Amino acid sequence: MTNESRVAPLPRSAFVHFQSLQTRWSDNDIYRHVNNAVYYHLVDTVVNGYLVEEGALDIERSEVVGLVVETRCNYFAPLVYPQNIDGGLAVERIGRSSIIYQVGLFAEGAPETAALAKFVHVYVDRDSHRPTAIPAPMLAAVEKLQV
Amino acid sequence: MTNESRVAPLPRSAFVHFQSLQTRWSDNDIYRHVNNAVYYHLVDTVVNGYLVEEGALDIERSEVVGLVVETRCNYFAPLVYPQNIDGGLAVERIGRSSIIYQVGLFAEGAPETAALAKFVHVYVDRDSHRPTAIPAPMLAAVEKLQV
Amino acid sequence: MTNESRVAPLPRSAFVHFQSLQTRWSDNDIYRHVNNAVYYHLVDTVVNGYLVEEGALDIERSEVVGLVVETRCNYFAPLVYPQNIDGGLAVERIGRSSIIYQVGLFAEGAPETAALAKFVHVYVDRDSHRPTAIPAPMLAAVEKLQV
Amino acid sequence: MTNESRVAPLPRSAFVHFQSLQTRWSDNDIYRHVNNAVYYHLVDTVVNGYLVEEGALDIERSEVVGLVVETRCNYFAPLVYPQNIDGGLAVERIGRSSIIYQVGLFAEGAPETAALAKFVHVYVDRDSHRPTAIPAPMLAAVEKLQV
Repeated sequence: MTNESRVAPLPRSAFVHFQSLQTRWSDNDIYRHVNNAVYYHLVDTVVNGYLVEEGALDIERSEVVGLVVETRCNYFAPLVYPQNIDGGLAVERIGRSSIIYQVGLFAEGAPETAALAKFVHVYVDRDSHRPTAIPAPMLAAVEKLQV
Repeated sequence: MTNESRVAPLPRSAFVHFQSLQTRWSDNDIYRHVNNAVYYHLVDTVVNGYLVEEGALDIERSEVVGLVVETRCNYFAPLVYPQNIDGGLAVERIGRSSIIYQVGLFAEGAPETAALAKFVHVYVDRDSHRPTAIPAPMLAAVEKLQV
Repeated sequence: MTNESRVAPLPRSAFVHFQSLQTRWSDNDIYRHVNNAVYYHLVDTVVNGYLVEEGALDIERSEVVGLVVETRCNYFAPLVYPQNIDGGLAVERIGRSSIIYQVGLFAEGAPETAALAKFVHVYVDRDSHRPTAIPAPMLAAVEKLQV
Repeated sequence: MTNESRVAPLPRSAFVHFQSLQTRWSDNDIYRHVNNAVYYHLVDTVVNGYLVEEGALDIERSEVVGLVVETRCNYFAPLVYPQNIDGGLAVERIGRSSIIYQVGLFAEGAPETAALAKFVHVYVDRDSHRPTAIPAPMLAAVEKLQV
């Protein structure tokens, strides 16, 4: 967008955790590739899927939940249903109550990201929605995502 | 709905082909399970995915494409992100230019369908949208789906 | 599907309540019209939108909520983004704890449905998910939808 | 994200063109507000809707189509189905073959954006996908969007 956003594709080594992702028939839009908004459904799934898998987030019961305050994506190459996607996950910054995740979407097996997303979660109390310090088990899970 | 629709869950033996399906974070709606409309995104993916895999449909180039004229789904038990789903596929009836598919969605590994869908494709010429006889390679692929 | 499902388009007079619906860019799939699954997102919106508008459903607080147990749609003519859609609503049957809604989707201003859906809600206690008698205010709202 | 991204809500005066947008039942996710990815479906709709309305884009036939190379969104306040949204549109920069759009999403009638998105289109030849100079009619349409 401006100078600072001259974003380039990243290699697999820039990510710590990988999850295989499926595309769906309706993900392709009229231009015959996965629609730009669909990438964010996948990004959300990669981040929350990791937290659930690590026991750091219980969707139904955790007192602390993540609200999304900023997202961003650069698209380098099209992805197309029915191909599978490798979703790579890393953390860029861990704050007191917020985390900047980086998610790379790769055509299955490809060496470089077809798209590169940032995803910023602020962790809040489920009821009051007030920002809260990241709980220790979540912190342990996301510290493993530092490159 | 009416008498004829007293539909019951089916076992895995009612289906011929299975595909593992992922759920996404945003599939869960405010009632905390996969939204009823999302099932149809999965059903579409199971049917078209099979046709593509069998070489019976080339999304970009096939002269004959499938238009959806009727869909139906009975929901027996909730499905919830982040669980995986087994999508079972069978054909109920093969006509001259139409096919009635049956798609069962199972919680991963479960013996009975959590949801049971019908999906009716009419095969048409890609340009004129006129119904056309099912091409031989597609016929060969779908005949394998008869129970 | 079978003989009973030889469903034909309905005129606007078959519906009691109308809501204007928008399409979105990503609703169009690779075949350049609104994807079959998207119709169900609209149907859900028409039914729940009516209940909310009538004060019969408070999404956050109502003790009784509607679970979807069956949906069905016949597609007669394509709908295409960016066109608007008129969503017509009627009830076909009101049971003790369930309602069969009929939803017609019309190209804006058109005399006949481009698609015709059934949508069956079972009303349950929000916490226990046990079927419950339809509360009086909801009953009053849906009785107005009888043709 | 980094210092430069300390983005603040914008007033309605920061936008030139407005479009009313609907939410759908399934837009709300498990946390009871519109899911972060859904905002991008709306943003896409605002940008392309404007181009279509202005006669600058014919989805089926235009020789030049817009590919999305970057998107970004800051979320300031939740939006919730069934509320309506006012989508404001402006252009931030017009290049030779690319345009940076700014899209503000407002709770209906609200003075400040609930979310603020950037959306970068590169205009390419429909067949070759090679970047191409923005055609004169499109240029005329987007120049009206400069604040």
